[in-house]
Amino acid sequence: MSSHHIVRDDQEPALIIANGASCSEELIGQLLEWSPLVIVLDSAIDRVIKLGIKIDVLLGDFDRDFDASYYLEKQYPLKIVHTPDQDKTDLDKAFDYLIAKGHKAVNVIWATGKRADHTITNITNIVAYRNELKIVVLDDHSKVFLLQKKYEKWYPKNTTISLIPIGKVTGITTKNLFYPLNNEELIIGYRTGSSNHVVEDGIVTIEHQEGDLLLMECWD
Amino acid sequence: MSSHHIVRDDQEPALIIANGASCSEELIGQLLEWSPLVIVLDSAIDRVIKLGIKIDVLLGDFDRDFDASYYLEKQYPLKIVHTPDQDKTDLDKAFDYLIAKGHKAVNVIWATGKRADHTITNITNIVAYRNELKIVVLDDHSKVFLLQKKYEKWYPKNTTISLIPIGKVTGITTKNLFYPLNNEELIIGYRTGSSNHVVEDGIVTIEHQEGDLLLMECWD
Repeated sequence: MSSHHIVRDDQEPALIIANGASCSEELIGQLLEWSPLVIVLDSAIDRVIKLGIKIDVLLGDFDRDFDASYYLEKQYPLKIVHTPDQDKTDLDKAFDYLIAKGHKAVNVIWATGKRADHTITNITNIVAYRNELKIVVLDDHSKVFLLQKKYEKWYPKNTTISLIPIGKVTGITTKNLFYPLNNEELIIGYRTGSSNHVVEDGIVTIEHQEGDLLLMECWD
Repeated sequence: MSSHHIVRDDQEPALIIANGASCSEELIGQLLEWSPLVIVLDSAIDRVIKLGIKIDVLLGDFDRDFDASYYLEKQYPLKIVHTPDQDKTDLDKAFDYLIAKGHKAVNVIWATGKRADHTITNITNIVAYRNELKIVVLDDHSKVFLLQKKYEKWYPKNTTISLIPIGKVTGITTKNLFYPLNNEELIIGYRTGSSNHVVEDGIVTIEHQEGDLLLMECWD
């Protein structure tokens, strides 16, 4: 039995394809390698179908005369999840859906680019899911995720690492970054830790006391 | 005497071309219509020169063996401004340059897209210039600017308007928006006012008490 397309225990990260700019097919291919559960937000569906990707869940408020049943025929079996709640974004609703189904982790693509309001909201809203879902937002130039109070990971020398506070973050201390922070504070709009980089091959340590701190690995 | 290319009193908004994704030539054309002072950040210079735009100022830290004199020959007269300060982004340094020269307003393009750290930092850092420079960030899907405590403007029905708090914003009250706010609070990462829209042709009023509130006019 091939494990590749059959076994899915929902412990591997799911994949959400959101409503922003498309990424490279190479990045999509990497993320599909492990046969994740694939959720597509309604406004992205036509672009996704053109790529020939098998979709598991189509989710959204289906406004603007959106006909979900059309896609049900094309992609059977396909779960249609209608989420009319206007207090949340469609991406938030996709996170809620995964949490309700017991998922622990998700990768998100197409969450950036195009509309600036979507980009900012999609990236910053991941902090509210700190205790429920491990979220990674990826595009062709960026990998974004929320840090726990202590973060340690091996990086090659010169890797670009940006620390972006969503609000105010206190007590930030780093090791092995070129512009070190020593029990310092970052505040969105006023002082961020953008475009730092790794001093030498080895473990980078980033600790903070209070607040929501995003790490962005970015490349040109 | 043609006023078009001669008169420049630096009261018209300047134009900064930053380091993100290129926008449509149509948008650039609109912004060049009034012959603004044009500042280009170093990493964008090759793309800008290909478009045949006359540049006034080339600004940046000129890292990665950047040879500014090469462009001086191509674009004479051209002011070269070397800003090695690593505590600020190149875009912040361009704002500082304009303030020092007495400018009051600037439009910024190519500030979004590509790297997520640049996009977030470029958009959110405009709040720190509240009292010094009127900044508008534009791309092909968005127009972004900081609100004063009371904002009033005529909009057509159904215009998409997003209110994005940079940090916490209190006491927000709106008129003529479909999802009204009545002395409410928005907090980045937790509750934003993304994808609201105008109820009917007419004046939209947005007031707030404390904090930095961005308005984004966005379109798909």
